[in-house]
Amino acid sequence: MHSFADLRDAPIPFRVRGLRSALRSGTLTVHDVVEEVLRRTAARGDDAVWISRVPAAALRERAADLEALRRAGTSLPPLFGVPFAVKDNIDLAGSPTTAACPAYAYQPDADATAVRRLLDAGAIAVGKTNLDQFATGLVGTRSPYGAPESVFGADLVSGGSSSGSAVAVAAGLVAFALGTDTAGSGRVPAAMNGIVGLKPTRGLVSTAGVVPACRSLDCVSVFTSDLDDAADVLDVLAGPDPADPWSRRPRPETAPRGPVRLALAADGTLDFSGDSAVAARFAEVAERAAGKAAAVVRTPVAPLLEAGDLLYEGPWVAERLAGLADFLAAHPADVLPVTRAVIERGREFDAVAAFRARHRLQELRAGIAPLWESADVLLLPTVPTTFTRAEIAEEPVARNLVLGRYTQFANLLDLTAVAVPAGATPDGRPVGVTLLGPAFSEARLISSAHELISREAA
Amino acid sequence: MHSFADLRDAPIPFRVRGLRSALRSGTLTVHDVVEEVLRRTAARGDDAVWISRVPAAALRERAADLEALRRAGTSLPPLFGVPFAVKDNIDLAGSPTTAACPAYAYQPDADATAVRRLLDAGAIAVGKTNLDQFATGLVGTRSPYGAPESVFGADLVSGGSSSGSAVAVAAGLVAFALGTDTAGSGRVPAAMNGIVGLKPTRGLVSTAGVVPACRSLDCVSVFTSDLDDAADVLDVLAGPDPADPWSRRPRPETAPRGPVRLALAADGTLDFSGDSAVAARFAEVAERAAGKAAAVVRTPVAPLLEAGDLLYEGPWVAERLAGLADFLAAHPADVLPVTRAVIERGREFDAVAAFRARHRLQELRAGIAPLWESADVLLLPTVPTTFTRAEIAEEPVARNLVLGRYTQFANLLDLTAVAVPAGATPDGRPVGVTLLGPAFSEARLISSAHELISREAA
Repeated sequence: MHSFADLRDAPIPFRVRGLRSALRSGTLTVHDVVEEVLRRTAARGDDAVWISRVPAAALRERAADLEALRRAGTSLPPLFGVPFAVKDNIDLAGSPTTAACPAYAYQPDADATAVRRLLDAGAIAVGKTNLDQFATGLVGTRSPYGAPESVFGADLVSGGSSSGSAVAVAAGLVAFALGTDTAGSGRVPAAMNGIVGLKPTRGLVSTAGVVPACRSLDCVSVFTSDLDDAADVLDVLAGPDPADPWSRRPRPETAPRGPVRLALAADGTLDFSGDSAVAARFAEVAERAAGKAAAVVRTPVAPLLEAGDLLYEGPWVAERLAGLADFLAAHPADVLPVTRAVIERGREFDAVAAFRARHRLQELRAGIAPLWESADVLLLPTVPTTFTRAEIAEEPVARNLVLGRYTQFANLLDLTAVAVPAGATPDGRPVGVTLLGPAFSEARLISSAHELISREAA
Repeated sequence: MHSFADLRDAPIPFRVRGLRSALRSGTLTVHDVVEEVLRRTAARGDDAVWISRVPAAALRERAADLEALRRAGTSLPPLFGVPFAVKDNIDLAGSPTTAACPAYAYQPDADATAVRRLLDAGAIAVGKTNLDQFATGLVGTRSPYGAPESVFGADLVSGGSSSGSAVAVAAGLVAFALGTDTAGSGRVPAAMNGIVGLKPTRGLVSTAGVVPACRSLDCVSVFTSDLDDAADVLDVLAGPDPADPWSRRPRPETAPRGPVRLALAADGTLDFSGDSAVAARFAEVAERAAGKAAAVVRTPVAPLLEAGDLLYEGPWVAERLAGLADFLAAHPADVLPVTRAVIERGREFDAVAAFRARHRLQELRAGIAPLWESADVLLLPTVPTTFTRAEIAEEPVARNLVLGRYTQFANLLDLTAVAVPAGATPDGRPVGVTLLGPAFSEARLISSAHELISREAA
């Protein structure tokens, strides 16, 4: 049932749950998994997905260690033998961390906390994936290591910044992958590759050992082929970490769980940048979800967009610069011009502007809070349209902003989000939708996605 | 028992609980209270406590309304007939709000939420009190309306910025007073006048209708003669307010309540600026508290001081400027030179500095969090020494910073605090101590103050 004959033809992916049961039952060995990863990765050839890979010998050694664990008869950890990829702004001991900037590269002494938890749970790290340099971008083309194409082909961008991680999952090279998500980097590439992208609440998953983008907003995210896999991986990742000052302890959930109440954008307020095919597909998904929901409320989109604009169009871009100003000064020629231009806009803002924006954000946060009294989740498109690599090259900044329209407010407004695949346009381009909920409502978010966005829709 | 014969001689103050029982039993009428307030206020003469007072006729009308309530036989609200003062950066409808800057003055349309809750609870607002202009200062001398002297006399400053509110309570003119507290404005004047100053957790009491100092840090505070009165007033004030985007909903308390565990500064790390008399008195109080505590832990003071320095010596001063830059530009001659100089230092910081300071603050917050696993409260001096008005005039900025040494970190680190009187030096200067605890631990804080800082000590 879980033999690799089923899995061999792309795009059938590895699945966390499927692999786990096959490995537990003995249908597969960890060695089988590792050899299959190596075979598939080699078969893809130079796809710009990887910045570095764990050597085959080290993977085989890891497989041997895990098989020894099984032979010892101890109870197997929850991700036993499951292969995963790590975005290359997250530390994996033994591999360099580049953040897609060769001059920035360093050899981490230790694993990031998130990686360590996965390894402790028996997962197999197979390599470090490509990204928009310094996780700044939503396109997947801002890297000296190449621009991965979406698995939907046709020169479509993979989305970013977690480009390689999303393609690695969508192409079936690994069962799951870690990304990061500040403005939508864990959701946009999920949409562009037809997979699930879970962006947990800020502070739920440790960011210790992650190259900062906007430290107060950065999240480690999870790409998987389906919702259950995302939930399983999050179970391993989540939890307070003394090494991360941004780590937060969730409030105990107090709200009673009833049928899902759905929020949708007020009629006619969504902007698909003229992409009527994505608009039509989104409308179908939203209508079907509304039909399954216990209640539907409408909410204005303008406050979300205003919050989102603070990120790249407002003072928060200075938070990126705060982390990189010294490096930029020391390495004037080593950063991509587009990345440098975006980040250096942080110099345009003074501290007064930063505090005023923080005050406005607080008003916007307070403005959205009452929504969660009448709704459990908010459904939006993940990306309003798609772009090809050629189109991004023409307008690299403006089209990047289009891709982030419905993602970049989430961390500023302290929301959790899951991007879910929702089929394709008639011309074969991917369509993704996102459910958003209040901080720490991940369990509700995932169950709502199951309930409202049916497998048939995806 | 509660006749005014007992109360007439300063410094015997009105007490919330005493007045309430006398008013409920009929020993006193609300008219008696109002006439006594008028008599005492007049007797103090020009003490620089008030910026404006509610006219006698209006107070008598309020008394009549409250007496009518009693005659109607309805159950009396919790602060029935209790007179209070309002710092003049908090709106009281019918009185101008000046923030101690005549050119800034405006006529508020409505009461601040905090004031409204007190009035709804039957309290009587008697006037608006003096403050360091724009609540910027801890001295009580930065006001065009005069510099109130501490009730301890000898030209000692009242402390600030809530100078008038603290003196109004300490001199027995009202039973309690509202202050505000960003850097210590609700605690320093309590120490300088031998009364209780409760600074609740940020967001526990609404700041809607309060002139912003640092909006993300500002708290409404309470001055009373004793701890029970402070608890009673806080009960009325606390609670979420949709009109205040900074309002927060407390987490339910989950920690079990046991005997109080006390944190003290690591040996020899407190700096009293050479004031050996205050140091000696503090040592006595700390030793007595340690003797009553179930456990004593020592904690370094340096991280607290580092956090505190962010406020006036770091980018947070730009948060003050964010609220006042437009006014300063339009009214170059209407702001006190010292106040203007302090606030305009906000121009020295760019957004990168603001974000870097925010990141450092997060590390400091995370650093103190584990303290609350081994301690319930932290005991520190409120002020390390005292100053006369002449001394402040000599060095208005440096000595202001001395007064804030052990207060100004509290809001940045998301702590709650209560300043408690702790007697006097042999030469008759006031000594105050402060208990601090984690956010939303007010109940524990007040019970710990009862337990550890005995009435004998005070």
